[in-house]
Amino acid sequence: MAGAQVMSPSHLPSNRYPSAHMALVKVIPLGGAGEIGKNCTVVEQGDDLIVVDVGLAFPHEEHYGVDIVIPDFTYLLENKDRLKAIVLTHAHEDHVGALSFLLPQVSCPVYCTPFTAALVQSKLEERIHMKEVTIEVVQPGDTVNVGELSVEFVRVTHSIPETSAIAIRTVHGIVLFTADFKFDFTPVDGKLSNLARLAELGDEGVVIMLCDSTNIDRPGWGPSESRVTDGLRRVVKDATGRVLVTMFASNIHRMQQAIDVAIENGRKVAATGRRMETTIDIARRMGYLVVPEDCYIRLDDIGKYSASQLLILTTGSQGEPMAALSQMSRGEYGRLKIVEGDTIIYSARPIPGNEAVIWRTINRLFKLGAIVVTDADSPIHVSGHAYQEEIKMMVNLVRPFYFAPVHGEPRHQHISAKMAVTMGWPQHRVFRLANGDVLCIDAENAFVDEPVQSGEVLVDQHGNAAVSGEVLAERTALGHDGVVVVSMAIDTESGEFAARPEIEVRGFSGPDDAVLDALDDLGDVFTKIGPNDIRDTEKVEKAVTESVRRSISRHCQQRPVVVAVVLEV
Amino acid sequence: MAGAQVMSPSHLPSNRYPSAHMALVKVIPLGGAGEIGKNCTVVEQGDDLIVVDVGLAFPHEEHYGVDIVIPDFTYLLENKDRLKAIVLTHAHEDHVGALSFLLPQVSCPVYCTPFTAALVQSKLEERIHMKEVTIEVVQPGDTVNVGELSVEFVRVTHSIPETSAIAIRTVHGIVLFTADFKFDFTPVDGKLSNLARLAELGDEGVVIMLCDSTNIDRPGWGPSESRVTDGLRRVVKDATGRVLVTMFASNIHRMQQAIDVAIENGRKVAATGRRMETTIDIARRMGYLVVPEDCYIRLDDIGKYSASQLLILTTGSQGEPMAALSQMSRGEYGRLKIVEGDTIIYSARPIPGNEAVIWRTINRLFKLGAIVVTDADSPIHVSGHAYQEEIKMMVNLVRPFYFAPVHGEPRHQHISAKMAVTMGWPQHRVFRLANGDVLCIDAENAFVDEPVQSGEVLVDQHGNAAVSGEVLAERTALGHDGVVVVSMAIDTESGEFAARPEIEVRGFSGPDDAVLDALDDLGDVFTKIGPNDIRDTEKVEKAVTESVRRSISRHCQQRPVVVAVVLEV
Repeated sequence: MAGAQVMSPSHLPSNRYPSAHMALVKVIPLGGAGEIGKNCTVVEQGDDLIVVDVGLAFPHEEHYGVDIVIPDFTYLLENKDRLKAIVLTHAHEDHVGALSFLLPQVSCPVYCTPFTAALVQSKLEERIHMKEVTIEVVQPGDTVNVGELSVEFVRVTHSIPETSAIAIRTVHGIVLFTADFKFDFTPVDGKLSNLARLAELGDEGVVIMLCDSTNIDRPGWGPSESRVTDGLRRVVKDATGRVLVTMFASNIHRMQQAIDVAIENGRKVAATGRRMETTIDIARRMGYLVVPEDCYIRLDDIGKYSASQLLILTTGSQGEPMAALSQMSRGEYGRLKIVEGDTIIYSARPIPGNEAVIWRTINRLFKLGAIVVTDADSPIHVSGHAYQEEIKMMVNLVRPFYFAPVHGEPRHQHISAKMAVTMGWPQHRVFRLANGDVLCIDAENAFVDEPVQSGEVLVDQHGNAAVSGEVLAERTALGHDGVVVVSMAIDTESGEFAARPEIEVRGFSGPDDAVLDALDDLGDVFTKIGPNDIRDTEKVEKAVTESVRRSISRHCQQRPVVVAVVLEV
Repeated sequence: MAGAQVMSPSHLPSNRYPSAHMALVKVIPLGGAGEIGKNCTVVEQGDDLIVVDVGLAFPHEEHYGVDIVIPDFTYLLENKDRLKAIVLTHAHEDHVGALSFLLPQVSCPVYCTPFTAALVQSKLEERIHMKEVTIEVVQPGDTVNVGELSVEFVRVTHSIPETSAIAIRTVHGIVLFTADFKFDFTPVDGKLSNLARLAELGDEGVVIMLCDSTNIDRPGWGPSESRVTDGLRRVVKDATGRVLVTMFASNIHRMQQAIDVAIENGRKVAATGRRMETTIDIARRMGYLVVPEDCYIRLDDIGKYSASQLLILTTGSQGEPMAALSQMSRGEYGRLKIVEGDTIIYSARPIPGNEAVIWRTINRLFKLGAIVVTDADSPIHVSGHAYQEEIKMMVNLVRPFYFAPVHGEPRHQHISAKMAVTMGWPQHRVFRLANGDVLCIDAENAFVDEPVQSGEVLVDQHGNAAVSGEVLAERTALGHDGVVVVSMAIDTESGEFAARPEIEVRGFSGPDDAVLDALDDLGDVFTKIGPNDIRDTEKVEKAVTESVRRSISRHCQQRPVVVAVVLEV
C-alpha cells in the first residue's frame, strides 16, 4: 500500500489495517486542533457521524464582554441527520462545556462514563431541559456500537476521574483519541491507565492517533498526582492559622489529598463555591471522594472551630472575578474574611492568559495579611497532562499509522510533530491539522480535503447570545475611547435646527473644548448639506459623524465612537 | 539606642549612624513599593527633597484604553520648591518612563550616567521641549551634592549598561537604593558591580536599604548574562534560513551577543523597530555595542543576501501590537515577511500580564511556517534581576540597619521580608512599605507616618490625558455590553413627542425585540411623568434611562450603557 512504501524503522507500523473497503473515513476537528480549549472533533464514515467532546474555551483579553468561546457547530447542524453519537472523554469544561449549546439543536445520545455523566448532568440542568437529552452511561472498558462504527472507552489517568481514551473502529482501522492523559502509576484513586489495552489496540491496527500535546514542551516524565500529598502536608503542618486550598472545582484527586492531610493534622474540612460543593457531593456519593462524616463541616459552622482546626477548599484558582477566593481577596465574601495568619495554598496552574489576574488576586491576599503558597514554594501542584516522554510512550504503545497532535497550540503541534519524526514517523504520516480541516482516510492514503466551516462563536456573560465580529469591534472601540452622542432635531421644512443640538459623552477622556467645538461646527455641516439633502437623514448623520470626528481630532488623538441621531420634526 | 536593644546576631549592625541631629529623614515611595513598574521614591531631609527614578508601568487588561500608568505626582508638585534633584538608576522605562510627564511641571536637574542620559534624552525629545530640562551627567562612582544631602552612584550589573545603586547620605546615615541589579561576575561589557564600595558604604553606616526583590522567589544564584551566547550559538548554528532575534529594545548586552554569534556564523546583522535602531545608534556611538561596519546592514538591503546570511534584531518581545515582530506575525509588516524556514529566537521573558498576547504572537509565527525558539527550548534568556542568594549577598555586604524590600509585588515583599528575618534582622527593622507611606527616620527610630497622596494615574494611548476612575468605569461598561442611545424631541408646550423617538445601538448583542420594546415603552414614561414635569429634562432623561433598562432586562441579561437625550422643541 502506498502509505507504507517509505523507509521505516522496524517498529513503525508498516502496513495499514487490511481493508479494501471503498468508504472514506473523515476526521474533522471543529475545535482543539492547534489550540487549548473547545475540543470538538468529528469522526465520520458513510452515514455515521460521531462527535468526540463538545468543549468550550475561555476568552482572551481582546474578547470584550465575552464570557466563553464555543465551536462553530454549523457543520454538525448541517449534518445532524447523520449525527449518531456524542462521545465524551472526561468532564472538564474544555471537553464538555459547550454541550448546553449543541444539545438543544440535535437529537442523539451522549455516551460517557458515570462520573462524567453525573457532572455533566448537574451542569446541564442549570441551562437546558433535560427531558430531551439522552445520556448513555458506559463503564471504562465498554464498547458501544454506533451505526457501522464502534466506540471503545479505554481508561487513562488524568486530573479528573474516569477519563477515557476513545477508540473508534472504522473500516480503515481504529481512530484513537488519547484524550487528555498522563501516565500516572500511582494515581490517587488507584485506577491505572489501561496500558495493555492500548497496546492491544495498537496490535489490531490504529490508523490514526489524535494525541494530547499540551505538555509536549516539557521534557521527561511528569510527576505523579500522589506527590502532591507531601507538598500539602509540609505546608499544612507548619500553618498555625486557617488553611485554604484552592484548585479546580473538578479536581477530586487533589481534594482527596487535601482532605487526607487535613485529617492527619486534626483539621475539619469545609468547602466554598457552589460548583465545588456540588462536585464534592457528587464525588462523595459515587465513592470518588472519601470524607468521614464528622470531618466535613458546613462553611457556616467554621466559627465553631479555632483557626488551627480548619482547612477550607475553595474555588477561584484561575482568578475568576466571581469565584469565592477572588471575592475574599477583595474583602467582598460575606461568609469568610481573610485574616492575618491565614495560609492559602494555590494548588493549580494558571490557564494561559489568566496569569495576570491570578497574581493580582494573590497580591491582594498578601496585603490582607495572608501567606499564599504557590508551587514555586512547595510541590503542591502537578500537571494532569503527559510530558514528552509519556507522549512518546503513548506513541510507542499504540503505534498509529498516522499521527496527529491536536490538543495544544500551534507551537505544541509543531514540537509534537517533530517528536514523531524523530521517532521514525515519516513527515507525510504526521498531520498538523487546523480546525475545519477534513482529513480523509481511504484504504491506501490519507489527505486533507477542503475545509468545512469552523471557528469561534463568542458567547457573552449573559448566556446564549452570540457576539459577532462587528459587535466585538464596536465594543473594542467603545472600551478604548468611549462614545460621543450627538442628537439633533431638524425642521424638515425650513431645513434648520428645531432645537439646540445636544452632545453627550461616556468614557471619553478628551478635553471639554473638543466637545464644545464639535457642537459649534455642526452649523457648518448643515450649511454645506444644503436644503435639498436635509431630509436625507442617513446623509445628514454621516456628515455630522465626520464633522464631529474632525472637530475632536483637532483637540486630541482620541477616536471615540460617534453616534449621530437626527430627529425629523 | 532603642532600635538596637533587640537580641541580634553579631553580624547585624548593632548601632545606628552616630548622629544626634534632630532632623527627620523621610523615605516616601510614590511608586514601586509592592508593585512592579513605575518606580519613584522620595528621600527628603529638611529643605532638600530628592526623587529617585520616575518610572511608568504598563496597564493591565482591566485598564480599558489605557496606554501607560504613571505615579501620582501630587506630593512632588506640592513640594516642588524643595525638590532639588531627580536621580536615575538606569534607563529602563519602569524607572524613567514618566519623566516626560513630571519634568514640564518642575525645575530641578536630572542626575544620571552618560548612557542613561543619552537614552532618556532621545526619548524626551519626542515629547517635550528640552530647553527647560537640565541633565547633569555623572560617571559611575561619582558623588554629587544636593543641598545638605549627597548622592553617590555605585555601579551594579543589570540588563542595561551603567546601572547604579544610589547612596544618599543623610544626617542619620546612608539611604541606599540597590536599583535593579544582579551580581553578574562575567558581564558582557566586563564592567563588574562595585562590591567593594557597597561593603565600604556598609561600614560607613547604611541606615536603610531599599532592595530590588523582583526575583526573590527564585532560589539560588541567577546565571550570568554571558551564558546566553552559548544558547544563541546553538540555535543560530543549526538554522538554515534567516534568524530573527527579539529582545527588549534596550538590551544592549543581549544584542552584542547576538551580533557576535551572527559574525561567527557569517551572517550580516540588520535591525527593525524604530526604538531598537535608535538604541543601537546610541550604543554604538558610546562604545557599548561593537559591530564592524561591514556586518551591519540596512533592513532594506536584506534582499541582497541569502537567508542563511542574515540575522535580524527585532522589537516585539512583549507582544506589543504595533511592534515589528507582532506586525510580522499578522503579515502586516511591509519590510519583512515571515517565511517557512525562518527561525525566531524569543530572547526575553514576558512582563507579567503579557503572557497571553506573546503566546498568540508565537502561535501566529508558527502558523506562518517559522520555528520559534523560547527559553524553554534553549538557554537564550537570563533575567537581569538578582535571585535570592544574590539578594542575601547584597544584604550581607551592605548590612543596613533597616531593610525595605521595594521593587516587586506584595508577594515578593513578603518573601523578601521573611528572608531578612531569617538572616537575623528583627521584624521591627524590616519595613514592607506601600506607596504613599512616609517612613520617618530619626536619630533613634524609624516609624511609618500618615501617608501622602499616591496612586496610579492612567494615561491613554494618545498622550497626556489622564483617565479618571469614572471614565474607566464607563469604558468598562461600554466594552462589556455596548451602548443604547435614545433620542427624543419633545414639544414642551404640549408635552408630547415632536418627532418619532430614535434608538441607536453600538456593541450591543441583545435581541432586536429588546430595542423595539424599549421604544414602545417610552410612551408610558411620558404618561407617568405628566405635563408638569415634562420640561424637567434631567428628570425625563432619568425616567427614560430607567425605562429602557427595564425593557431590555425583560429580554436579556445584558446591561448596556443607556444614554437618553431629550431635545426641547
